[in-house]
Amino acid sequence: MSEIFQNIPFVQYEGTESDNPFAFKHYDAKRVIMGKSMAEHLRMAACYWHNFCWSGSDVFGANTFDRPWNKPSNPLEAAKLKADAAFEFFSKLGIGYYSFHDVDVSPEGSSLKEYIRNFSEMVEVLQAKQETTGLKLLWGTANAFSHPRYMSGAASNPNPDIFTYAATQVFHAMNATHALKGENYVLWGGREGYETLLNTDLKRERAQLGRFMQMVVEHKHKIGFAGSLLIEPKPAEPTKHQYDYDTATVYGFLKEFGLEKEIKVNIEANHATLAGHSFHHEIATACSLGILGSVDANQGDAQLGWDTDQFPTSVEEYTLVTYEILKAGGFKTGGYMFDTKLRRQSTDLEDMFHAHIGAMDTLALSLQRAVKMIEGETLSKLVEQRYAKWNDTLGSDILSGKLSLQDLANYAVEHDLDPKPVSGRQEMLENMVNGYIYP
Amino acid sequence: MSEIFQNIPFVQYEGTESDNPFAFKHYDAKRVIMGKSMAEHLRMAACYWHNFCWSGSDVFGANTFDRPWNKPSNPLEAAKLKADAAFEFFSKLGIGYYSFHDVDVSPEGSSLKEYIRNFSEMVEVLQAKQETTGLKLLWGTANAFSHPRYMSGAASNPNPDIFTYAATQVFHAMNATHALKGENYVLWGGREGYETLLNTDLKRERAQLGRFMQMVVEHKHKIGFAGSLLIEPKPAEPTKHQYDYDTATVYGFLKEFGLEKEIKVNIEANHATLAGHSFHHEIATACSLGILGSVDANQGDAQLGWDTDQFPTSVEEYTLVTYEILKAGGFKTGGYMFDTKLRRQSTDLEDMFHAHIGAMDTLALSLQRAVKMIEGETLSKLVEQRYAKWNDTLGSDILSGKLSLQDLANYAVEHDLDPKPVSGRQEMLENMVNGYIYP
Amino acid sequence: MSEIFQNIPFVQYEGTESDNPFAFKHYDAKRVIMGKSMAEHLRMAACYWHNFCWSGSDVFGANTFDRPWNKPSNPLEAAKLKADAAFEFFSKLGIGYYSFHDVDVSPEGSSLKEYIRNFSEMVEVLQAKQETTGLKLLWGTANAFSHPRYMSGAASNPNPDIFTYAATQVFHAMNATHALKGENYVLWGGREGYETLLNTDLKRERAQLGRFMQMVVEHKHKIGFAGSLLIEPKPAEPTKHQYDYDTATVYGFLKEFGLEKEIKVNIEANHATLAGHSFHHEIATACSLGILGSVDANQGDAQLGWDTDQFPTSVEEYTLVTYEILKAGGFKTGGYMFDTKLRRQSTDLEDMFHAHIGAMDTLALSLQRAVKMIEGETLSKLVEQRYAKWNDTLGSDILSGKLSLQDLANYAVEHDLDPKPVSGRQEMLENMVNGYIYP
Amino acid sequence: MSEIFQNIPFVQYEGTESDNPFAFKHYDAKRVIMGKSMAEHLRMAACYWHNFCWSGSDVFGANTFDRPWNKPSNPLEAAKLKADAAFEFFSKLGIGYYSFHDVDVSPEGSSLKEYIRNFSEMVEVLQAKQETTGLKLLWGTANAFSHPRYMSGAASNPNPDIFTYAATQVFHAMNATHALKGENYVLWGGREGYETLLNTDLKRERAQLGRFMQMVVEHKHKIGFAGSLLIEPKPAEPTKHQYDYDTATVYGFLKEFGLEKEIKVNIEANHATLAGHSFHHEIATACSLGILGSVDANQGDAQLGWDTDQFPTSVEEYTLVTYEILKAGGFKTGGYMFDTKLRRQSTDLEDMFHAHIGAMDTLALSLQRAVKMIEGETLSKLVEQRYAKWNDTLGSDILSGKLSLQDLANYAVEHDLDPKPVSGRQEMLENMVNGYIYP
Repeated sequence: MSEIFQNIPFVQYEGTESDNPFAFKHYDAKRVIMGKSMAEHLRMAACYWHNFCWSGSDVFGANTFDRPWNKPSNPLEAAKLKADAAFEFFSKLGIGYYSFHDVDVSPEGSSLKEYIRNFSEMVEVLQAKQETTGLKLLWGTANAFSHPRYMSGAASNPNPDIFTYAATQVFHAMNATHALKGENYVLWGGREGYETLLNTDLKRERAQLGRFMQMVVEHKHKIGFAGSLLIEPKPAEPTKHQYDYDTATVYGFLKEFGLEKEIKVNIEANHATLAGHSFHHEIATACSLGILGSVDANQGDAQLGWDTDQFPTSVEEYTLVTYEILKAGGFKTGGYMFDTKLRRQSTDLEDMFHAHIGAMDTLALSLQRAVKMIEGETLSKLVEQRYAKWNDTLGSDILSGKLSLQDLANYAVEHDLDPKPVSGRQEMLENMVNGYIYP
Repeated sequence: MSEIFQNIPFVQYEGTESDNPFAFKHYDAKRVIMGKSMAEHLRMAACYWHNFCWSGSDVFGANTFDRPWNKPSNPLEAAKLKADAAFEFFSKLGIGYYSFHDVDVSPEGSSLKEYIRNFSEMVEVLQAKQETTGLKLLWGTANAFSHPRYMSGAASNPNPDIFTYAATQVFHAMNATHALKGENYVLWGGREGYETLLNTDLKRERAQLGRFMQMVVEHKHKIGFAGSLLIEPKPAEPTKHQYDYDTATVYGFLKEFGLEKEIKVNIEANHATLAGHSFHHEIATACSLGILGSVDANQGDAQLGWDTDQFPTSVEEYTLVTYEILKAGGFKTGGYMFDTKLRRQSTDLEDMFHAHIGAMDTLALSLQRAVKMIEGETLSKLVEQRYAKWNDTLGSDILSGKLSLQDLANYAVEHDLDPKPVSGRQEMLENMVNGYIYP
Repeated sequence: MSEIFQNIPFVQYEGTESDNPFAFKHYDAKRVIMGKSMAEHLRMAACYWHNFCWSGSDVFGANTFDRPWNKPSNPLEAAKLKADAAFEFFSKLGIGYYSFHDVDVSPEGSSLKEYIRNFSEMVEVLQAKQETTGLKLLWGTANAFSHPRYMSGAASNPNPDIFTYAATQVFHAMNATHALKGENYVLWGGREGYETLLNTDLKRERAQLGRFMQMVVEHKHKIGFAGSLLIEPKPAEPTKHQYDYDTATVYGFLKEFGLEKEIKVNIEANHATLAGHSFHHEIATACSLGILGSVDANQGDAQLGWDTDQFPTSVEEYTLVTYEILKAGGFKTGGYMFDTKLRRQSTDLEDMFHAHIGAMDTLALSLQRAVKMIEGETLSKLVEQRYAKWNDTLGSDILSGKLSLQDLANYAVEHDLDPKPVSGRQEMLENMVNGYIYP
Repeated sequence: MSEIFQNIPFVQYEGTESDNPFAFKHYDAKRVIMGKSMAEHLRMAACYWHNFCWSGSDVFGANTFDRPWNKPSNPLEAAKLKADAAFEFFSKLGIGYYSFHDVDVSPEGSSLKEYIRNFSEMVEVLQAKQETTGLKLLWGTANAFSHPRYMSGAASNPNPDIFTYAATQVFHAMNATHALKGENYVLWGGREGYETLLNTDLKRERAQLGRFMQMVVEHKHKIGFAGSLLIEPKPAEPTKHQYDYDTATVYGFLKEFGLEKEIKVNIEANHATLAGHSFHHEIATACSLGILGSVDANQGDAQLGWDTDQFPTSVEEYTLVTYEILKAGGFKTGGYMFDTKLRRQSTDLEDMFHAHIGAMDTLALSLQRAVKMIEGETLSKLVEQRYAKWNDTLGSDILSGKLSLQDLANYAVEHDLDPKPVSGRQEMLENMVNGYIYP
């Protein structure tokens, strides 16, 4: 195995004084802050697909990346060279985790049997790589959307054979994730959605999807997989409407099929904004429902209507998000996974490093700011005070179910209620937040 | 009581040959089609607020409408004159139903007691009007968002006194609706939402909202109100984020608080599009979840990011929506309510007629087209055929829960599955739909 | 040359009674209406690229179309088979025009010389096809955006060699269009835009683009090309920001470089809506500026933020657009070109026919409705009346430049002006339009 | 004159150590940086309208602000009390400039004569206030959109009397601005736009608007007003489409009417994003066209489709914008004007201070970061290098017009051109920017 990223050193923390573009300015992996190392708080992962499978094409143009690991004509050989490249990259970057789809790491082959054989062989390769490098698997998943057979969905396909094909992939991808000690298994609803309502039976497709997820839960328990199962919401793209639209929609679906204790969400920043929400909103909603699992840490373009999967650069945004996650107790099995791709014009191998270093520093700095917000306590106390009257008799009696609508109507007249609103103090709170971000 | 709409006749059906702008070209109320009269199918209602309370202001400009019924300085007197005007308008229009908020029909007064007294007096006025004219109440509701006390929400307010005030209004508005034989009671989440997450406790506010809705359900049963309870989704406006974002979100909320059998949705076309959905999508989703209650029939502007509440003009859109509703069995207690307002530049009294006549003709024509689509059966049969394989053994066994993920993985390998996708035929289906709309 | 669309007949007009899916219901090419045949009014064209080059891939999935004309491994042979297929399709469809990019019809080869040689050979093939079939070329263009060399733009590229490469392609594509008696030459700003302002010099790139367009104009006159030159606005995609954002932006650019008499616009419906405008707006704006050239007739998805290039189905939308074009005197060199692609799930060859037949019928019906609107005259007279006072002394003196701000201020005080607004009658006008669409 | 903001001190710079919410942490007005004081660089202004005229209403709710200066029933008396409050606020805030519309500062009265008399009296009041406090007028303007007479536009109105009325207001507002030594005069296209194309003649309305602007320019020269004339782009709201859509559209309009040397743009952040552009884009575009005049410094909500006019809090965004302005030579007559309003729930007088202090600190910090970016030179040098080849022979000859399309086509073949793309380095550049923002 020869070195692929030849002129690039192992990336180290050098602090803000450094002007070395291949060093971290803020991410000091082992530095302990609020009881845990930065690495343990952030649990950052790099992805296989955008970094090692995508070659820089877009809808209007051909590949612009010319990667050495795509050269071998033998698929398994190429997969192994790709694994070499991937683990060299992950290691030099000093990131603790990685994530993959089945077909990112292993060639599909020309039959299911070949798919299974290839996958099994590549899992051994990955196992060996993990041992050598110390890398860990944040999550695995199956790609049930790229092959033409999935053009009309996988679990929600009008053809049960295709449902079965997808189930087979998920079965093997779950087993692989388990074997590789993955800490989560993710289900992104690739093409589970519709292109036109004219040929779609929503109720039937939802039932198919519900049963699929129940099978996944049952299988998890059967094999004793200790990680979390996660659904990743997205509102559209590739389909016109995706069933896992956003966190609130997924929650309703989980409740409908009795899965709300079994499955959590993997929230992607850019999917949140495509759904018309702030990223902060999606995280806060998931936390308030108790279903936050993991985060696909990226950034969209506020002017574009598709998933741009950019590397996160906004400390202003990630501080608020990290604050929310810390308030909810921090990541358990999840982490910040970079579902991010280079701009198509960033064609050099070293751009992969610039991009990830910038992203990791953005999260590290956001973590530091968010910890100060937690430790400062001012923000959370102001929120508590705002609702303080709900701890008094009237408030408690309302929430406990003691009082009826009529009781309240009587109470209001008896007390001749005329409550006055009080300032919400939004601008003052925003100043406080900026005080933490720009100390 | 003198005539207000003096030069305007009672609107009649005259058919497409007529060039009388004050006649219906398509809406022939009593004409029977697919077993019911057009009036019974469509159950159309006009609203009190946009027609009789709003005076043509917008964020950047003052009132442009100069309505006679707003002249009296005594509030109760003005309310009665307004009721005269409203029922004259409804009657001349030949629409069967109307809808109102408490404070549309009755002055708030300077205390809760005065509010209750006024409301009670005005309910008697409305009762008399209904009897005289034969008009019926499609739904009533309470306005818990315009008064400054509600600036931070009603049920989700940080102050339980304000929750109680809102409960009082809803109590009286439900009772009034019951007294007036209203067929539904609607809850629109006015300011139930947040402006900034920095001062908001999502979990707590959702709990407050959940308890509020439970109380409403309990009260309905207590008074024996036979109509439906409806929540009206909207994603934003006036608040930055509204909790009743869309149908799927409301469904999750109902499931969380055990209300999914008790409350349905009132879908507004313009709210659907603001939430990033097609109107058709929201209707189809509600039908598939069994929670479609009623429809606020209006139309947004595809280029504008706020609720424009325009009168519906698109037969292309309403045919698909009506087709969906007919497939689901048609309206039960709900109907098509015109939550629509004149453009601010349409300042004449007769513009109110033009607008409603156009809207009613749009729905009547859409109904006729949709009935042909139902009767043609081609569309629904093509959808059934598309999923036909799910009725075979494999499909049935999957859905019945007989098979596990492992069973499917074994099945796939044993049968060496390699399923081929088949054309979704979207363009052919679109041609068929246009064949119905433009026969 | 064997038949490719084997079971598909030549499409004929059969009227609305027909239920033959391979017949026109509304498009009767030779029927004369308002002085011209429908074919002459609409000047419809099919495109080469979406129909014969794209194979059904999207960002998340592989090709789903398996087209016979892509089988030959020799590129020139494949190009000729593709031409056979294309002209068989165009002929059977009974459409009068087609359009292409250089590399749609001719293989790029491995050097510029080979590109030129291939293109020259294929132009002869196309010439022969045009003669045999009677098909005409609505417009030609060059693809200066798909090859990796264009990843940072063509004319606006930071490297003048790449500018030169693009100029070479445009030179040959213009000459080919001229040789094939094309009626227009189109320039779509593929990647003329930016991905990030951090590496972009806007002023410099605009100067490059300006000079490029001047060269194109000079070349047109040099070779005596009698057709129109057209720029096609688009706001984004593939770049984050495209310089030819919309019609108004292109107009400013043309004025800046003295080109407003030489270049017109080719407006695409889906680009209009991506730019935040209605399609109707873009057409009306171009007409009012005297720069409407041609139209890419397609339809976007109101919920999706990317170019979906769907086949037009909305008679409601196309009637208004066609009305605007007829008012401006109808198409001169331009026409309605279907820059439309099948949905990725519409995998059968016959779906190409369904889609185009539906689109052509949509335009034919829209034309008939629009002609009625023109002939009815009511709409245009109401608009004239609305501005009638501008023909009086005060209005004329203002517009002729006789009066200064001070003159007007004096006039206003002398006449104690207090002008009253009059109703804009929007809803009544909308009813009139629906009266024409649904007679 | 008694104190209105009674418990609020004069706001001082106290540095980041301070936890006084009524102190600046970053804005040190007199501190010199890159040759000018921070005050001279930023030229910040507060507005009259949102702070002293708006009372907290929105489309769905009544006023929530209860301001003492709105109590007097006599309009002129109220106007004077409002001026007291305004100048007390501006002074305590330590902001150097303010801005107003005619009717913000002076009652409209019941006739034009009264309007003129009131305005003249209030100009004297403002003059005296400016002298006492040292405040300066950044810009004045006329409100030709709130009164019902303007419901269908002012200059673009179908009635020339209304055009004349607007001209009268602008005449007096320009004269007032001149008398008060205002440094700019702004024209925002309030209702210059359309609600429906069905009743609109675009060409005619543009001609009216063009003549109006020419009159304004002529009047400026006549009275010797030395400030700048500015048009403020906005894409929509209150009208469906506003003619001054964005900077590029305004540029085309200026070119059409020969005004591009006479009128510049006043760019508002929130209008930029409503038009589908980044704020950065609009600023960079105006700079590259040489027409940047001034900036309305606010912030929109990325999820909302209307103008929220929030106070700027994002140092990340304002650093890039300020960098662009500094590169273009900094503000001349323009400045950063806070066209910002409190959230409707921020009901206390002190919220006005919190909001402006946060905004001023945001801009002050952004200025400091941007100055470092200028002084660092790295970013601008990388951009220059990217285009370096355009300074060689081929590039120069292209831009100078020496070469034709044919010359380039010959050159390409002779040199057998095959140019290779080079990385755009977007992520590395983003890291550099963050290096400046988070040093």
